Amino acid sequence: MSESMQGLKRSHRCTEVSKDNLEQKITVMGWVQKRRDLGGVIFLDLRDRSGILQIVIDASSIGEEGFAKAERIRSEFVVAVEGVVEKRSDDTVNSNIATGDIEIRAYDLRLLSEAETPPFQIEENSDVKEELRLKYRYLDLRRPDIQRNLIMRSKMSSIARQFLDQEKFLEIETPMLTKSTPEGARDYLVPSRVHPGNFYALPQSPQIFKQLLMLSGYDRYYQIVKCFRDEDLRADRQPEFTQIDMELSFVDVDDVININERLLQKTFKQILDVDVSLPIERLTYQEAMDRFGSDKPDTRFGFELVDLSDILKDCGFKVFKSAIDNGGSVRAINAKGCGNFPRRTIDALGEFAVSYGAKGMAWIVINEDGSYKSVITKFLSEEEIANIVKSVDGQPGDLILFGADKNEVVYDVLGNLRLEIARRLDILKKDEFKFIWVTDFPLLEWSSENKRYVAKHHPFTMPLEEDIPLLDTDPSKVRAKAYDIVLNGVEIGGGSIRIHQKEIQEKMFNALGFTKEEAYDRFGFLLNAFKYGVPPHGGLAYGLDRIVMLMTQSDSIREVIAFPKIKDASCPMTEAPGEVEVKQLEELSLKIDKLELE
Amino acid sequence: MSESMQGLKRSHRCTEVSKDNLEQKITVMGWVQKRRDLGGVIFLDLRDRSGILQIVIDASSIGEEGFAKAERIRSEFVVAVEGVVEKRSDDTVNSNIATGDIEIRAYDLRLLSEAETPPFQIEENSDVKEELRLKYRYLDLRRPDIQRNLIMRSKMSSIARQFLDQEKFLEIETPMLTKSTPEGARDYLVPSRVHPGNFYALPQSPQIFKQLLMLSGYDRYYQIVKCFRDEDLRADRQPEFTQIDMELSFVDVDDVININERLLQKTFKQILDVDVSLPIERLTYQEAMDRFGSDKPDTRFGFELVDLSDILKDCGFKVFKSAIDNGGSVRAINAKGCGNFPRRTIDALGEFAVSYGAKGMAWIVINEDGSYKSVITKFLSEEEIANIVKSVDGQPGDLILFGADKNEVVYDVLGNLRLEIARRLDILKKDEFKFIWVTDFPLLEWSSENKRYVAKHHPFTMPLEEDIPLLDTDPSKVRAKAYDIVLNGVEIGGGSIRIHQKEIQEKMFNALGFTKEEAYDRFGFLLNAFKYGVPPHGGLAYGLDRIVMLMTQSDSIREVIAFPKIKDASCPMTEAPGEVEVKQLEELSLKIDKLELE
Repeated sequence: MSESMQGLKRSHRCTEVSKDNLEQKITVMGWVQKRRDLGGVIFLDLRDRSGILQIVIDASSIGEEGFAKAERIRSEFVVAVEGVVEKRSDDTVNSNIATGDIEIRAYDLRLLSEAETPPFQIEENSDVKEELRLKYRYLDLRRPDIQRNLIMRSKMSSIARQFLDQEKFLEIETPMLTKSTPEGARDYLVPSRVHPGNFYALPQSPQIFKQLLMLSGYDRYYQIVKCFRDEDLRADRQPEFTQIDMELSFVDVDDVININERLLQKTFKQILDVDVSLPIERLTYQEAMDRFGSDKPDTRFGFELVDLSDILKDCGFKVFKSAIDNGGSVRAINAKGCGNFPRRTIDALGEFAVSYGAKGMAWIVINEDGSYKSVITKFLSEEEIANIVKSVDGQPGDLILFGADKNEVVYDVLGNLRLEIARRLDILKKDEFKFIWVTDFPLLEWSSENKRYVAKHHPFTMPLEEDIPLLDTDPSKVRAKAYDIVLNGVEIGGGSIRIHQKEIQEKMFNALGFTKEEAYDRFGFLLNAFKYGVPPHGGLAYGLDRIVMLMTQSDSIREVIAFPKIKDASCPMTEAPGEVEVKQLEELSLKIDKLELE
Repeated sequence: MSESMQGLKRSHRCTEVSKDNLEQKITVMGWVQKRRDLGGVIFLDLRDRSGILQIVIDASSIGEEGFAKAERIRSEFVVAVEGVVEKRSDDTVNSNIATGDIEIRAYDLRLLSEAETPPFQIEENSDVKEELRLKYRYLDLRRPDIQRNLIMRSKMSSIARQFLDQEKFLEIETPMLTKSTPEGARDYLVPSRVHPGNFYALPQSPQIFKQLLMLSGYDRYYQIVKCFRDEDLRADRQPEFTQIDMELSFVDVDDVININERLLQKTFKQILDVDVSLPIERLTYQEAMDRFGSDKPDTRFGFELVDLSDILKDCGFKVFKSAIDNGGSVRAINAKGCGNFPRRTIDALGEFAVSYGAKGMAWIVINEDGSYKSVITKFLSEEEIANIVKSVDGQPGDLILFGADKNEVVYDVLGNLRLEIARRLDILKKDEFKFIWVTDFPLLEWSSENKRYVAKHHPFTMPLEEDIPLLDTDPSKVRAKAYDIVLNGVEIGGGSIRIHQKEIQEKMFNALGFTKEEAYDRFGFLLNAFKYGVPPHGGLAYGLDRIVMLMTQSDSIREVIAFPKIKDASCPMTEAPGEVEVKQLEELSLKIDKLELE
């Protein structure tokens, strides 16, 4: 029989009690983490959000009836305890917990709720299978490590909001039921009952609405908001995810970067006591690719790419020479001190390179005596070898790995190889936070599927002023006022300055191959809105889930989302999505297409 | 040709400039509200979020080229102005605007964006039709009154968050893509592509998730969150609306009320400088019905209901007597000082009463000489009349209005009559804020549709302790630990303490006519979760749209939502919902049911 808490009032959370309360009467409530019986005395570890507190129950204090109740307690029972704070004897002090020097002598005990034995133990760093954890997420969420994650997430939102408030951003809510757009990822659709055969779409981002707010004069907008993409899920994707989204008027790139650097500095200082020194280093897209083979470089370690094409353009190694002759390049990374990797490790790296599109992986080990171990040196002149070694700052004990192919393949292979080597060396420290801005992304990229250029960011992204003439002559060369903020190799946010000038927008649509009519078909009311006076504006959106994942040193965003979905976009706990009643579909004028199902 | 802002940086918003900046060089940017040409000098009213600032442009300061540009300016052009702050001459001071004693002499001018003539003037309190306003919402949103509304909304969210932060609430996000539930209003469904024929539902509220968070030990949760109901829209409903949602563990009614009173006090003080004196008055549901004929009484004025059934139970007026004999009642309100209403007004009130289900409306005017004007007094004894007048505190010049029927009809008729009279007297002041708690709602109500009791709040609402035995014997009499907070006759929030005791939950399901199996069918994983230790908990949710509507003295929640929908749940601006491509439906294994459409 569970009891009511009537007449009792919690006075403290578990770890709000301390030596300062000695001899005081207090009331605490929580879950029983553990019960131990020590010959006529029962000890409870009482758990709440704040931590653990020890309760001592003996019949002489609590009476026979109370003691009998205590004997029924099992793990996860919810109890209320009225008692007195006492000092623990020196030999029972537990320095592992915040309240380890005190305990509560119970004078009243209520069993507020009984509990069956949970399907798994509620404990830190549990190795229970994720599927089971997510099915019983309400129990999994009791684990102190997950609780710390969600508390940190709440703190992140709170401090970000405070900062944005101070900077005169307005929080403005944009619609969740909106219109499907032809560009971008796949929309989640919502059938309309009132308008049969018509659908709302859940927003992939508030992009259009925040731009409208700027041209409505709201000056600075922010929102921490759910966004939706119906994509096949990868490890760190969820069908619904959360953005810290902002947009500012009368700004250029430096203004947006400046304010966001201060936001990052403040949140990391207040939450993690990590100092982010400003300004954060900036790399152009081209620099990032050339040095790290990635537009989201992990700069916690070196192993940077070096272009050897000039040195090797006339070399005798066919693989290298033909890569260069075909407009590609030969580049290398120097895995400092990895010359002692066993052959099977180097072979595994070669296979890894192949999985990223390489046709093979050439390598040179510089032996301790200065000689080389390699199958390719015989095709190269001494001068070429010397120049390679010099270019990559090779020292005895180093391992030089080569990529030779089209540039995009070389970047991808070497960019991923440097990450793989770092992982194998276990040098990626999760408590080291390296930020970097990547700027000047290409405005357009050629889509072989669409046989036209498509916008890399979106069609309203502003080109660099000096590149505007190239829009007419060589669109692929145009750089955009677009920027990403990267933390430890993860893109945690990105944005751009938007086009506010009609003439440039027209050039842009022209480069994208749209006629005026096609442009209006696609972006109708936004283009109409742009007729009535547009301020220069730009913005940025963070992936909150990813930031908090990195802050909490978690391996997956599912560890920082209260009720996440799994890879097939379902929720093992609620069993969503599920079947619905025939009547519900009839009201929506919808039928499930059996042909598709069978 | 629109110009770039390159090389310029805004130094102030319009009304951030003041006499303190005299002789300083500043840069401002914004929209041109108005251009006036005064013989060789052009004046601009420059507008931004902060307000209006006057710009003076003459050729001698800005040069011929700049002046020529200025001559092209029309309303809603976006311009940047570099200039010097000057004092206005005494005869040109405009005390209507914050910056009325200064003006900016322009030395540089850029036309950042031109503007076509808007379909309506951008001005305060526009009388433009709402349909047109919402089609061009991006222009409508430029109006200063709407901007004030959205700024106040942002402030409300911000201060509420600050308060909840301080009170140790965690902001925890709950899923938007979740499962359809058989109880409650109609869900918005979202078809699943990965699980053909299955659907997510958008949440009507985070109710189940917030309860799970409590039993996971999160102690205090809040979220400002979108909720969805696919209902036919009334004036103050939207398909998506925003709740300030909270839940607390180890609390009873007084704890929830206390913390929310402090929240309301703080927000109204900081936003409106309105003092809410605590504690806020509480009425039980029964008191609210008896005194105001409504469970959301507007207490800004009197005209309270008085039960005359005892006085009139043996009276000679058949309509009264039979109402009482049939288990109903006779009640009256005294419209103080309304004895001078013309006969046609009283007749109109009678028709109004009929529209709420009355069969007619008896009334007595107390003439200035103490005599009565009425068609019913002849059926009543002098003692009965005297008792009526005494009961309602009738004075010469008063108008007494009667309701006689089943109690629910009498409440509804008189409750609405008192509101209607207040409206006619124009005594409802929008800047007066009267809060009231309504508590002790009935736990259950009989559903003639379902032929069983249904939960008035929801099936997890806790009964008053002393009423628990009635669950078995007389369920209709059981009062709930449920409470609403009412402001000026609008329910702005509500909540309850939830059942945490298995035994009481079973009684509740029993009263609702569910077997254990049926209960599990409906509330599956929540009931499973409840097996593993549940803290006493309860919460409350506010309708943010409604609160801000009242705060801003708006007539509709559409005035406080950036991009609202109209009555048919569509958005005139985006034209959502809309048609989608065949491919999108194929991917979802859905077909539009033509039979339904034709």
